[in-house]
Amino acid sequence: MNATTKGLITKESILTTAFELASKVGFEALSIGELAKAVGMSKSGLFGHFNSKEKLQMMVMDYAAHQFAQVVIIPAIKEPRGIPRLNAMTDNYIEWARTHSAGGCPILAAAIEYDDRPGKVRDKTKKFQTQMLSSFERAAEICVEEGQFRKDLDPKQFAFEYYGLILSFHIYEKLLGDKQSEKLLKTSIDELFQRTKG
Amino acid sequence: MNATTKGLITKESILTTAFELASKVGFEALSIGELAKAVGMSKSGLFGHFNSKEKLQMMVMDYAAHQFAQVVIIPAIKEPRGIPRLNAMTDNYIEWARTHSAGGCPILAAAIEYDDRPGKVRDKTKKFQTQMLSSFERAAEICVEEGQFRKDLDPKQFAFEYYGLILSFHIYEKLLGDKQSEKLLKTSIDELFQRTKG
Repeated sequence: MNATTKGLITKESILTTAFELASKVGFEALSIGELAKAVGMSKSGLFGHFNSKEKLQMMVMDYAAHQFAQVVIIPAIKEPRGIPRLNAMTDNYIEWARTHSAGGCPILAAAIEYDDRPGKVRDKTKKFQTQMLSSFERAAEICVEEGQFRKDLDPKQFAFEYYGLILSFHIYEKLLGDKQSEKLLKTSIDELFQRTKG
Repeated sequence: MNATTKGLITKESILTTAFELASKVGFEALSIGELAKAVGMSKSGLFGHFNSKEKLQMMVMDYAAHQFAQVVIIPAIKEPRGIPRLNAMTDNYIEWARTHSAGGCPILAAAIEYDDRPGKVRDKTKKFQTQMLSSFERAAEICVEEGQFRKDLDPKQFAFEYYGLILSFHIYEKLLGDKQSEKLLKTSIDELFQRTKG
């Protein structure tokens, strides 16, 4: 293993740890000092990788968005167009909330933490949330194209409601530990699809 | 003004500042050091009031829940039973998100930050979220009693969906700064009431 490869591997494993730490403590409480402790490196060694707390936050955010796309969005796109694709997104989100971001979704944490704090971290969070909502809107448009949803459906209104149900699931599942959280989500999504049908 | 009164006033004003700070930076990043800077007191002076970061977090959480009840829940209960009460809650929540917790709702921030971090702060957040959801469930039950919602309505399912719409509004309004956020919320709530009617 040459020095460059070793450097890349180290950075990847640091980001994995930083992602887990951000999931647990949030983005603002994520510090180079805490991360150094978690990965067993010196603070100055870590500074070599990230230079500043903001740089670290930005890279963790990119890493989280990449993971989210890999787990939730990309596998869903492989499903047949229309409702099967939306159902896959929902199932993948449940999986994401339960397994891949066990400490709580760091993008959602940032969306709440930075909702009124101008700066690069907020801009990036806003960009990722907008991208995700666009993919929900596009999924709904495809259902219209496939004749599964009614023609006059407003995709923006659909994405607003669909995302709301996902957010509610997140609180019931993670904070409240409610055993019915998946059933509540599935019932409300079935109901949303039912009244959206063509 | 005697020493005790002065002490009480100081604590109240410190809590107001701490609430605003928690709204902005989140609960975990809320530190006695940062708060001391914000209120212009010495760190040791603040320790006299709160003893520990956890104590500070707990008191800010109580303060936030009290404010939430004063702004959102209590004025709504003065409205006529049933749908007018639910509509008042929605309007008051919009007001809460826009004015009273301009830096972002600190209880919601804590609900996301502490969703997988066991401890006293999480327990308190969970308690407050459960109380709020119970008040949504109770409001729906009253609509059933008044003959406004159908008899077989599941109040828990209703609260799950209603809260989801509120959460989605929060993201669209605060993070995305979407000018349509109120319209999206009102349209989806009208629709929820419509399909819930007796």
